[in-house]
Amino acid sequence: MKLVRYGERGAEKPGLIDAEGRIRDLSAHVQDIAGEVLVNLDALKRIDPASLPLVEGNPRFGACVGGVGKFICIGLNYSDHAAESGMAVPPEPVIFAKYTSAICGPNDDIIIPRGSEKTDWEVELAFVIGKPGKYIAEADAMDHVAGFCVCNDVSERAFQTERSGQWSKGKSSDNFGPIGPWLVTRDEVADPNELHMWLKVNGKTMQDGSTNTMVYQVPFLISYLSQFFTLHPGDVISTGTPPGVGLGMKPPQYLKAGDVVTLGIEGLGEQRQTCVNDA
Amino acid sequence: MKLVRYGERGAEKPGLIDAEGRIRDLSAHVQDIAGEVLVNLDALKRIDPASLPLVEGNPRFGACVGGVGKFICIGLNYSDHAAESGMAVPPEPVIFAKYTSAICGPNDDIIIPRGSEKTDWEVELAFVIGKPGKYIAEADAMDHVAGFCVCNDVSERAFQTERSGQWSKGKSSDNFGPIGPWLVTRDEVADPNELHMWLKVNGKTMQDGSTNTMVYQVPFLISYLSQFFTLHPGDVISTGTPPGVGLGMKPPQYLKAGDVVTLGIEGLGEQRQTCVNDA
Repeated sequence: MKLVRYGERGAEKPGLIDAEGRIRDLSAHVQDIAGEVLVNLDALKRIDPASLPLVEGNPRFGACVGGVGKFICIGLNYSDHAAESGMAVPPEPVIFAKYTSAICGPNDDIIIPRGSEKTDWEVELAFVIGKPGKYIAEADAMDHVAGFCVCNDVSERAFQTERSGQWSKGKSSDNFGPIGPWLVTRDEVADPNELHMWLKVNGKTMQDGSTNTMVYQVPFLISYLSQFFTLHPGDVISTGTPPGVGLGMKPPQYLKAGDVVTLGIEGLGEQRQTCVNDA
Repeated sequence: MKLVRYGERGAEKPGLIDAEGRIRDLSAHVQDIAGEVLVNLDALKRIDPASLPLVEGNPRFGACVGGVGKFICIGLNYSDHAAESGMAVPPEPVIFAKYTSAICGPNDDIIIPRGSEKTDWEVELAFVIGKPGKYIAEADAMDHVAGFCVCNDVSERAFQTERSGQWSKGKSSDNFGPIGPWLVTRDEVADPNELHMWLKVNGKTMQDGSTNTMVYQVPFLISYLSQFFTLHPGDVISTGTPPGVGLGMKPPQYLKAGDVVTLGIEGLGEQRQTCVNDA
C-alpha cells in the first residue's frame, strides 16, 4: 500500500495510490496518516481501493505522515559518505535531531535561509514507526515499522558545523525535511537493504548508491534507538546518506536559488524541489 | 496568570491557579494550553477566575504546555556552569534538541534508563513561544513569549558525550523533560534575568543560582533561534543551567533509584521528582 497526504499545507487529506497510480481519497475512513492509524494499517488494507473516491487534478503532496513526534536522523551511516566528510565511521550510531517544523511535502521548495551559503542535499531512506516500543529486540524490530519513504535531509553545513556545536542548528530550517511522496507499507518493501537511491541537481547525478552500503541497518537501528527512549507511532527515522553530497565535492558545491533537486529511491517514489531564497 | 494542565497523563485538562492557589477548570473555554490558545492569552485573562469550577482534590500536574513542536535547549549558557563542565563559553549559543517524547509533568518520576550510571539534573528557566515568527528582531522578541516555566533538563552524561556524538541521545529519555508546574504568563515575570533558581537532591542544595548569570539572555535567544527556523506557538526553549550539576562535582555524583529531586525558580513554582529504575 502506498499512503499519501495531499492538498494544501496544514490541511492535507489522507489518501492512497491505486494500481493505476491515481490518488484515492481515504478521508471517509481515517482523519490522517498519523498516530493510531499507523498502528492499524491492516484496517486500511482491507478497503477496496476502487470503492474510494478518485481525486481529480494534480494536488500537492504533503509529507506522507502527519503528527510526527520525533524526527531522528542517523549520521555517517554509509562508510563512503563518512570518508568523503573526512570523518570515521562511528563505533555506534550517531543520532541527531531535525526539528519537526522542518517537515514539508516532497515537492515543496527548498528554502535557502538568509545568510546561508552552504545549503546541501542528502537522499535518505526513512522509515516510520507503526507500533510503540522500548528496549526492542533486534529480532522483533521490523514489527515496529509501518513503512518506508524518501527523505531529503537538507543541511546547512556552516550552521551545522561552524556555528557552535550540535548539528540540529543546520538541519532544521523550514522545509529542510521533505518526506514522501508515499509511505510505502512494510509488506511492499522486499528488502530495505537492497534499494537503489539517487539524487540529481539540475539533472546531473550527484548521488547514486544503494542501501546495501548502510553501516547500521534498520532492525539494529530500531533496537538501538529504543534503548534511549520509547519509539512512538509516527516517529520518523532517516537512516543516513550515501556519498555525493555537496560538502564532499572538490571544491564543495552548494545549492542556490533556481537549482532543481530531484531524488528517489527504488519503489518509494521521487521528489522534486526548486531552491528559493527566503523572503 | 498561572496556567496549568492537570489530570492523568495524555488526558490533561486546562486550568489556572486562582489567587488562593487553587486549580480552576478552564475546559469550558479552551481544549488545551497549546497552540492557538497561547496566541490568544488575552482571551483567558478576561475570564473571572471565580466563574470557573474549582477542581477538587490534588490532581497530578501535567507538563504546563501541550502539543510542543520544538523542545530547544541552550547549552553552556551560564559561564560558571561551562567552567565546571570543563568547556569554554561558546562564541554563539549552542542549541541542542530534546525529543518531545521526553516531556512529562513536574512531579512525575525521573526514570533512570536501563544501563544508565550517569543520570544528572539541571534546573533551567524555560519559556514558551506564544506568537509565530522568523528573523525576529531582538527589540521585538519579548512579544513572542507566552510565558515562563521551570524545566529540569535531565541528562544522561554517558549517553550524551561518550556514545558517539550529538547530545540528543542523552537528553531525550522518557521523562527527561519535566516542565511546569505553571506556565506563568509574561506579564507576571517582571525581569526574567533576575530570578533565583535552586535544585536539591534528597534535601541537599546542589544548585543555587540566578538567571542574572545567564550568558545569552531571552530576547537575544529568540532573535538568534529565529534566524535558523520559524518559532511556533508551543515551542519550548530551555535556557541552560547554573553550576552545581552532578557531572561537575569532584567526584561526579549521579542520581540513583530512591533519590528525590526538588527544584524551583522564583515566582514559577516548584517540581519534585522521585528517581526510579526503568522496568
